[in-house]
Amino acid sequence: MVRSTVKIVTMMAIIAASVSVDAQRGKSQKPLVIADQGSFFVGGESKTIGGAAPVQGRGGAPPGEVTVNQMYVQYQIPPGAERHLPVVMVHGCCLSSKTWETTPDGRMGWDEYFVRRDRPVYLADQVSRARSGFDATTINAVKAGTVPASQLPNVLFATHQIAWTVFRFGPSYGKTFPDGQFPIEAVDELYKQMIPDLNALLPMPNPTWTNMAALAVRLKGAILMGHSESGFFPEQAALIDPSGIRGMISIEMPCPAELTDPQIATLAKIPTLVMFGDHLGDVQGGPANWATSYDSCEKYVQRVKTAGGDAEMMHLPKMGIKGNSHMLMQDRNNLQLADLVLQWIDRHAEAGKAVSRTH
Amino acid sequence: MVRSTVKIVTMMAIIAASVSVDAQRGKSQKPLVIADQGSFFVGGESKTIGGAAPVQGRGGAPPGEVTVNQMYVQYQIPPGAERHLPVVMVHGCCLSSKTWETTPDGRMGWDEYFVRRDRPVYLADQVSRARSGFDATTINAVKAGTVPASQLPNVLFATHQIAWTVFRFGPSYGKTFPDGQFPIEAVDELYKQMIPDLNALLPMPNPTWTNMAALAVRLKGAILMGHSESGFFPEQAALIDPSGIRGMISIEMPCPAELTDPQIATLAKIPTLVMFGDHLGDVQGGPANWATSYDSCEKYVQRVKTAGGDAEMMHLPKMGIKGNSHMLMQDRNNLQLADLVLQWIDRHAEAGKAVSRTH
Repeated sequence: MVRSTVKIVTMMAIIAASVSVDAQRGKSQKPLVIADQGSFFVGGESKTIGGAAPVQGRGGAPPGEVTVNQMYVQYQIPPGAERHLPVVMVHGCCLSSKTWETTPDGRMGWDEYFVRRDRPVYLADQVSRARSGFDATTINAVKAGTVPASQLPNVLFATHQIAWTVFRFGPSYGKTFPDGQFPIEAVDELYKQMIPDLNALLPMPNPTWTNMAALAVRLKGAILMGHSESGFFPEQAALIDPSGIRGMISIEMPCPAELTDPQIATLAKIPTLVMFGDHLGDVQGGPANWATSYDSCEKYVQRVKTAGGDAEMMHLPKMGIKGNSHMLMQDRNNLQLADLVLQWIDRHAEAGKAVSRTH
Repeated sequence: MVRSTVKIVTMMAIIAASVSVDAQRGKSQKPLVIADQGSFFVGGESKTIGGAAPVQGRGGAPPGEVTVNQMYVQYQIPPGAERHLPVVMVHGCCLSSKTWETTPDGRMGWDEYFVRRDRPVYLADQVSRARSGFDATTINAVKAGTVPASQLPNVLFATHQIAWTVFRFGPSYGKTFPDGQFPIEAVDELYKQMIPDLNALLPMPNPTWTNMAALAVRLKGAILMGHSESGFFPEQAALIDPSGIRGMISIEMPCPAELTDPQIATLAKIPTLVMFGDHLGDVQGGPANWATSYDSCEKYVQRVKTAGGDAEMMHLPKMGIKGNSHMLMQDRNNLQLADLVLQWIDRHAEAGKAVSRTH
């Protein structure tokens, strides 16, 4: 019986995947219309450095200021977007905003799909990653011999082997799940997205949290979305300043148990969606334990509900959607999952609320 | 007489700036139509690492492979783009593709302007920068104590003070040129774009050169554009594989004198535009010497011409366009300069050539 259920669900997944492919085909036929697009920074502060930064290979530079802790944001706003809340997407560990763009096998990512569903979309590179840059002063000081090598950050640089099981492409490296939704034939393209993570350099609170909260205020209301390392960043941002945050979407991360009742009360005022994929306990090795993460988030969701909040745990296999990996926004059924998120936004973050806004 | 010429030219520059502002206003009125957009990587190779990379703070990881030397590329293709060659834009030192996007003061960048002029545009983050990631193995090895700190790369992390004169915002830090075109009131936003440059980690030949050449082949013909650190990258790419390169646009960099006659012969087969802004000899301090760079490129252009090539030096002040900084793609008259580049492409790289293509 278990086997036939798996078969039926696999068929459903294949059908869902075909729908996505059709949506993808539609992409090349129907042009994308953009009312406004561009990029900007949120946050950032000046830091005085001592002059150990050589430029263009011509020796040490005089002391001066550099800017650190800024967050790069790239956006697209479709026509008529004032009817919907903007969605801010923040990537996970060892990744950049590439997470949300074209999938490793060349299909449409969530960024464009949300724009095609009339949402303004803001992609943020985490502070200390990608186009946000990072504070290089420690590395330069170690090279100059003024601080010991032990002060270098732990640079997280995940191997293919670690990614395979942490991202749940299969039970162990090189093996796949029969119903796996990740486009494993294109896994080499995913590996190219994996870039060194320098978050160990960051002060606390993480400037990405502060900048996400500030971005929501700047947008006069926004949905914040995080994934994995950044899964709980929407909530961390809300604990700093909830005033601009209209919804929080947290995808696959551990949820903290040590939150106080006042903190839960703050978070319970904002609609929350938590999403987890499949095979949480079916992988071996690697630093993540997704079954434990799931349990911690089940408890968190219950706690928010008990406090009167609108929180939902969307565990995909329980909804008949099987085989989703940790990189579910890149899975074959990624647009089906995007539709679930969009419907949740409509019903929970926008329902009965006037969202007519100016951007 | 010199003074009145300066006045007239300044007025011309002000008029030119007004035109740009009008074009910018048009942006919010006329939606941008995109036939296709997305992102992908060019190049990249596997490297085995020894297991010194901790992930998620849970201690050292087992040995495995990581991917290095890949180049992240983001693109937009307008409808009807098959009439024009794609343009690949590559940023300079201590910067990312943000260079070409929204200007520090919020105007349209060259990326969108070129798309609005029917060109497919490809923005590449240099290998070892931004979304292309970098090879973190040396930093991790130094932290682990297996290699000495002296093996750390020279991380280029330019201060505000260095940027001011290297980018020629004025004669010395805090002072501006009366006719300066850079939107200096927004200089703090430029500082946020300045991110650490890890090119010292790269092997030779620089994988960005190889990847640019490969991208031109993949696009079945492209214009390559570089700026400053990457100013001569189009030519370096052509020396690796000229087959896909239909034009080279080199903005403000030193030109090498040591090229061989066969190398010049290869480069002379591809139309070349070199562009320099104003006040090349009017800044003090900093590691760049733009007047010397200009002279080296004048010699280079002459050498290519002597070899029968189509090479043009566009020195803006000699054309009556005054006050342009090193960041000329962000200057107030940036769209006027973009028009000069587009006209050059039409006349030199596309003129008389069938460019009808499929992307």
